Amino acid sequence: MDRTDLLARLQPEKEKIEQAMHNDLKVLAGLQAGPSQLPEILRHAVFNGGKRIRPLLCILAARLCGSNNEKVYRLAIAFEYLHVATLLHDDVIDHADTRRGLPTVNNAWGLTPAILAGDFLHARSMYMIGRFGGNRCLELINRATEAMVEGEFLQLHNARNYNQSEEDYFAVINGKTALFIGAVCEAGGVLGSDNAEELRALNLYGANLGKAFQIKDDLLDYLGDAAKTGKAVGNDFYEGKMTLPLIHTLQHADIDEKNVLLELLKGDKQERLAHLDKARDIIDRNNGFAYARQLAASLIDDAVASLALFSKVPNKLFRDTLVGLAHYVLSREK
Amino acid sequence: MDRTDLLARLQPEKEKIEQAMHNDLKVLAGLQAGPSQLPEILRHAVFNGGKRIRPLLCILAARLCGSNNEKVYRLAIAFEYLHVATLLHDDVIDHADTRRGLPTVNNAWGLTPAILAGDFLHARSMYMIGRFGGNRCLELINRATEAMVEGEFLQLHNARNYNQSEEDYFAVINGKTALFIGAVCEAGGVLGSDNAEELRALNLYGANLGKAFQIKDDLLDYLGDAAKTGKAVGNDFYEGKMTLPLIHTLQHADIDEKNVLLELLKGDKQERLAHLDKARDIIDRNNGFAYARQLAASLIDDAVASLALFSKVPNKLFRDTLVGLAHYVLSREK
Repeated sequence: MDRTDLLARLQPEKEKIEQAMHNDLKVLAGLQAGPSQLPEILRHAVFNGGKRIRPLLCILAARLCGSNNEKVYRLAIAFEYLHVATLLHDDVIDHADTRRGLPTVNNAWGLTPAILAGDFLHARSMYMIGRFGGNRCLELINRATEAMVEGEFLQLHNARNYNQSEEDYFAVINGKTALFIGAVCEAGGVLGSDNAEELRALNLYGANLGKAFQIKDDLLDYLGDAAKTGKAVGNDFYEGKMTLPLIHTLQHADIDEKNVLLELLKGDKQERLAHLDKARDIIDRNNGFAYARQLAASLIDDAVASLALFSKVPNKLFRDTLVGLAHYVLSREK
Repeated sequence: MDRTDLLARLQPEKEKIEQAMHNDLKVLAGLQAGPSQLPEILRHAVFNGGKRIRPLLCILAARLCGSNNEKVYRLAIAFEYLHVATLLHDDVIDHADTRRGLPTVNNAWGLTPAILAGDFLHARSMYMIGRFGGNRCLELINRATEAMVEGEFLQLHNARNYNQSEEDYFAVINGKTALFIGAVCEAGGVLGSDNAEELRALNLYGANLGKAFQIKDDLLDYLGDAAKTGKAVGNDFYEGKMTLPLIHTLQHADIDEKNVLLELLKGDKQERLAHLDKARDIIDRNNGFAYARQLAASLIDDAVASLALFSKVPNKLFRDTLVGLAHYVLSREK
């Protein structure tokens, strides 16, 4: 499935997702008529041009497992709400001013509304997961949410550790991203199947796709086109954030190059920004980008391989779409 | 039931609640062996000398409705977790340094761990409510959590409105406290009964008790003994917070006294602290405290009256305990 076909295939589902969120938030806003800014804040946070990867994965996984149930859209948007809830709190924690070119909620409305709006979406999301996915989905997502918080704590713990290993890096991205995306795929599958092998395969697909997605994010941060990504290039390095290309380089560069990087990492942000090109050259020379690219590609291969199980003909279109989506993760420019 | 009997009656249940939380958090800490500070933070936040009013109400309501199910303890502690999650975020929002004489999580560990630990308990709580209470409880609590966030937004909106009415005040405390406590009582009842009238009565009991509880908090803040409450006297006034005694006084005092209070409210905190006695005198002269006391008492009467439904003999002890708990809310000194 080439990219044009993939996007054409996903577009109607994406529209249904947007519609389901509009309907849901409209009902909420009706319940909450009053002077509160909450409905406005929720609209700002939810309709932010997101790619809707999580709900799309949930829907495709459900369809692949033979579910025609329309409630999959309600379950799917719960995962987007949960994702937006974590972004709202992340932006508070990171003191972020903009997201996708728009002011963050903490910037435009303040810290308190941002924390509270995140709590609101979190509660609503859990309720919808229980209602439309049942206890099994609730348990899956709960475990993933616990891991997400755990990943954040691990990231805090590793923050100034310039000696961290690939293993440390994967422990964080597993918790923060991969386990949740795996759980979302499995939760979609639960709507149509109770075959343990199928559900495990979907979870594995999602977790590997999640890891590759995160590594691709790391690569785009150094090498992307700001006009396309909507983020300043080099932001991770500016913030002193340890991502895979940098970790690989610090582990493999010779002592001189390693010291240049360490000097910059321990110095101030402005200086790092001024030397971004130099850092990028060192990483490139030490195959930091090539290594990350290769690892992401191999994770995508693993993700695709775990779908081999679903080779029955009626599923072919959904499987092809999930395969296409996995490849898109690697080729995406934003 | 006098106070000694009541406390003797509640003590074994309170111990079971503490034990259930210890067991639950021990399992979690086992899952999360690693460098994370999360287990330590959770213990600090959860075992803080709380009164455990919410879990106690849940258990008593379940027993009153004839449930002997042991899973009520797991459901009950989910409500305490949710309460602690809101306290963690409230303390971030209020920049609070201490709670019950101990440093807050945001003070001891920082803003990020406090937000994340709140998110963790929130997720765990929702999962346990779904698992041990089912979808009906999840829906009840979801609606209450949405109302809680809405109440916080309303409070933000009213923050500098010195002209606010009793109605504004009740809209906030309904959302922030009363609906949740009502939902907790109803959720406990759901474990043993599907009689709509009984469940409505329990919800009403909890909501009225919750409102009275909040008003009593307002009174203790002006008139309590800091050695018993563990909070500085006059803190609400110091923060310029509009509570019932003050709202009543601003609505009923003559123009001179009203202006004195408004002057103080618009001034700086230190000045308010220095004039706390003067403010207290004005409130007292205008029956602000007496009015609040009377209103709380009448809410407790309403709470007790809604239990009349449960007059069958096998329930008598549980009903008496709930009645005793309601009266305790009025007489408590901390």
